[in-house]
Amino acid sequence: MNFADRISRCIQEFGPLVVGLDPHIEYLPRFILEQELKEKGKTWEALARAVTLTNQKILDALHDAVGMIKIQMAFYEMLGIPGMLALKSTIEYAQNLGYIVILDGKRNDISSTALAYAQGYLSSVSFPGGQLESFWKVDALTINPYLGEDGLIPFIGEADKADRGIFVLCRTSNKSAPTLQDVDGPDKVYIKVAKMVETLGEKMIGESGFSSIGIVVGATYPDDLKYLRTNFPSLLFLIPGVGTQKGDIKSLANAFRDDGLGAIINVSRNVIFAYREDLNNVSGEGFEKKAREKAVYYQERFWEFIR
Amino acid sequence: MNFADRISRCIQEFGPLVVGLDPHIEYLPRFILEQELKEKGKTWEALARAVTLTNQKILDALHDAVGMIKIQMAFYEMLGIPGMLALKSTIEYAQNLGYIVILDGKRNDISSTALAYAQGYLSSVSFPGGQLESFWKVDALTINPYLGEDGLIPFIGEADKADRGIFVLCRTSNKSAPTLQDVDGPDKVYIKVAKMVETLGEKMIGESGFSSIGIVVGATYPDDLKYLRTNFPSLLFLIPGVGTQKGDIKSLANAFRDDGLGAIINVSRNVIFAYREDLNNVSGEGFEKKAREKAVYYQERFWEFIR
Repeated sequence: MNFADRISRCIQEFGPLVVGLDPHIEYLPRFILEQELKEKGKTWEALARAVTLTNQKILDALHDAVGMIKIQMAFYEMLGIPGMLALKSTIEYAQNLGYIVILDGKRNDISSTALAYAQGYLSSVSFPGGQLESFWKVDALTINPYLGEDGLIPFIGEADKADRGIFVLCRTSNKSAPTLQDVDGPDKVYIKVAKMVETLGEKMIGESGFSSIGIVVGATYPDDLKYLRTNFPSLLFLIPGVGTQKGDIKSLANAFRDDGLGAIINVSRNVIFAYREDLNNVSGEGFEKKAREKAVYYQERFWEFIR
Repeated sequence: MNFADRISRCIQEFGPLVVGLDPHIEYLPRFILEQELKEKGKTWEALARAVTLTNQKILDALHDAVGMIKIQMAFYEMLGIPGMLALKSTIEYAQNLGYIVILDGKRNDISSTALAYAQGYLSSVSFPGGQLESFWKVDALTINPYLGEDGLIPFIGEADKADRGIFVLCRTSNKSAPTLQDVDGPDKVYIKVAKMVETLGEKMIGESGFSSIGIVVGATYPDDLKYLRTNFPSLLFLIPGVGTQKGDIKSLANAFRDDGLGAIINVSRNVIFAYREDLNNVSGEGFEKKAREKAVYYQERFWEFIR
């Protein structure tokens, strides 16, 4: 099925929340981390195993409440090969539970190199005498547009072939986002990005009316969000910036089409490490229950204004 | 030693060539690839092992002629965990032979996520009760500036702590580079990037007068190269686009300071797969000898105009 249609169905079934698996080591439940450090010593294996176990418990607890997860690659790459094994096992575990898995790698390059990323993460790898299906095989990948169209086309081509999705950074959620993204001549850079993505993704529009090539738009810039929704009706939005970055939830109503489709909203730390709100819970016991409660809370908040 | 000073010494000793280890599977020497596929079947392990062996032979052959290598991460990530093992072993093999290793990952993100990348690739990772030195520990990393200053600062901070380097994409070498990079209001985006990098890297200027935070500038835009050299005297340039992308070699003279320092020039496929120029060499035997000849050829060409 077309990726945008899968996302649309998922929003209708669960709501627009995308839980971010961003395993900051210092926030991992202590009882898990300490057990692993005790067993395996101060090693990458211990840290990566603690990440895997934490993720699995969260994925188990959330899977009747949340349909999509976003995995932030930095936290896995940081842990070396053991971290990459944790990444692989988290992707598989999530997909087996039916989650749509978005890999947040913000990859970018040109021509044959961009193609290598796209084939590696989304489709398949050919070699003299054979072909292997993508090792990582996620449902969607985030990419960075700084290199222009020919940095996007190889990704879009492979996503199209394999019925996968792409989210292109457009208006990011951080404070210094405007430095480059608002350079104006005559279109602002981020508007140019949206136009580029709209054009390149035209052939990938599904029954929902959305294209499988979407954009990343930060919750922290509500006016821009509104402008983009109004002017780019075929673009799916992946919205970071709620939670730790304190983007205003109410203004997110502007990100959705009248039928409540068109945007998915990422919350990471505020869900997966919700147990930390209780300062007395130093061991982290029951963290997955707290994560589930917080996920349900966000889905309910989001449903309110998209109904 | 300050990273920029290490680069400057390396240019003086060997010349400005940075050989790119971009192991396109279809160009790997057939005699190596076929042997591995025969032994290990059509597996990621076979492909990754062929990459590792090819890299090792090239690194052995080149190490008295070339001081720097650039590793394009896409081709390793594409091969899954076995590819990441090939990446690790290539980094170690190269560093043991004394090469400066630049990891071309074009990573980018904000705040704690950018920090995770920076610590993972350049410095060290802390966790409750301990610290581990970076698993990948390369000498420099390429990054993408689309997110603005706060996407750069965490990388620069860790590079500073660990005496490592950063190259920020500025003017890239590809055809559609101007789409975003030339948006003009009033500074073009890529000029804003250069100004940002200059300011942020001021405290990391070494005895050579160059900062350890450099920029990527494509050989395919010679006028921009000249403009950037003239106006940003403290920035080291990493220059792709020579070879396959056909950037003009003569105009690269404009990238250097009068003393022949200030730029390093990447050539990838045209060196490591030089054996393919001989259409009769289908097996790839002797590829490392051809790579060495081509590397020496480029160093000589480059020396001509920097003397």
